[in-house]
Amino acid sequence: MSELEIYGYIVSQPLLSVLAFCNLSGIPYTFHEFDYLKREDLTEEYAKINPNQQVPAIIHNGYNLWESAAIIAYLADSYNIDNQWYPKDPKVRGRINAYLHWHHENIRNPITSYLRAKIYRPKYSGAPQLTTETEAPYIEKLNEFYLKLTWILTDTHYVARTAQPTIADIFAFNECASGKEIPLDFGMHPVIKAWHCEIEAIPEVKILDDAYFEAVKAF
Amino acid sequence: MSELEIYGYIVSQPLLSVLAFCNLSGIPYTFHEFDYLKREDLTEEYAKINPNQQVPAIIHNGYNLWESAAIIAYLADSYNIDNQWYPKDPKVRGRINAYLHWHHENIRNPITSYLRAKIYRPKYSGAPQLTTETEAPYIEKLNEFYLKLTWILTDTHYVARTAQPTIADIFAFNECASGKEIPLDFGMHPVIKAWHCEIEAIPEVKILDDAYFEAVKAF
Repeated sequence: MSELEIYGYIVSQPLLSVLAFCNLSGIPYTFHEFDYLKREDLTEEYAKINPNQQVPAIIHNGYNLWESAAIIAYLADSYNIDNQWYPKDPKVRGRINAYLHWHHENIRNPITSYLRAKIYRPKYSGAPQLTTETEAPYIEKLNEFYLKLTWILTDTHYVARTAQPTIADIFAFNECASGKEIPLDFGMHPVIKAWHCEIEAIPEVKILDDAYFEAVKAF
Repeated sequence: MSELEIYGYIVSQPLLSVLAFCNLSGIPYTFHEFDYLKREDLTEEYAKINPNQQVPAIIHNGYNLWESAAIIAYLADSYNIDNQWYPKDPKVRGRINAYLHWHHENIRNPITSYLRAKIYRPKYSGAPQLTTETEAPYIEKLNEFYLKLTWILTDTHYVARTAQPTIADIFAFNECASGKEIPLDFGMHPVIKAWHCEIEAIPEVKILDDAYFEAVKAF
């Protein structure tokens, strides 16, 4: 048992970002992989680790924490990390944090809400299939997402407007990658496509992305 | 001119949280108050300060940053702040950061999206008034908000599950206070009401809340 325990589903995009950060930073951990179909995030036992009952969460020397971006900041401080993924320079860290707060509603939400409505709810919760009318607002939000992400990447090349890729790019990449199921189409968005290929080529990112799609196949 | 310049509308809830943090932490600043009706956040000049063209943003010794929670973390590091509002203890800071990431979609969004749809869009953008049918999803999200906030406060008394109020409570309070216009009704939610009164009694919070409603009156 490591001093750091990480809980989550391999099909959780934020969990992949936490695992990638640990792997890129040399932080050892024990991964407790939940079974998505058993909804192990809804047990009373897990509510003691994350009262919000979302994944991922960690236990580090008896201290429990949730929300992936808060976990990254806590681990960086606790393990005295100062690498390109989450550097100590407060100006670069400021930009990364600004991205990670903006990420929820502007990058993650347009993709995950669409994924859930189009695939997961009809498949697992008996929700009706989307119709042209009910799908329209999701498409509209997705088009805004394409525009915003293209604009940022054209302006600065990396999502947090940093000189090198950071954990912010990995958070954004994991959402975009999972959107393959909708499917997201980067053919019409070459700036996003080039960035996506660059982040995907990071071995610590690619191996987790492959594990995600391996797990999705089994659903 | 101070070394820290803060830009925003006094009717921006996140701006109020940044100002309150500076006032509570003894950080001197110059406040550049924008005129909401002139949409000064949409000027080319402001895009150089915050490319996302949202408020608040800061310039600190030539460095520009946006996203209120990222600004708090940056200022705390830059000014070596270690008070109850954003303490250095990584375990408490972890909880505050976890709340601030969760805040966007669970506390801020249900209130601001409702406020905009019910009051601001019909008044300033010519959008139609909400009907029983179009208002229903907003009411549903608001009811979820009441449930979640009551549950957290019953469990722990403060929103970030800390022993004392922190900047997280101020972020949550500013959203709840602005919801008076919808109106939010805390009469049926005594746990929220008690917490709301406690945070409102902090003089640095109250004075900004009063300024917010003074500005709203003039609209």
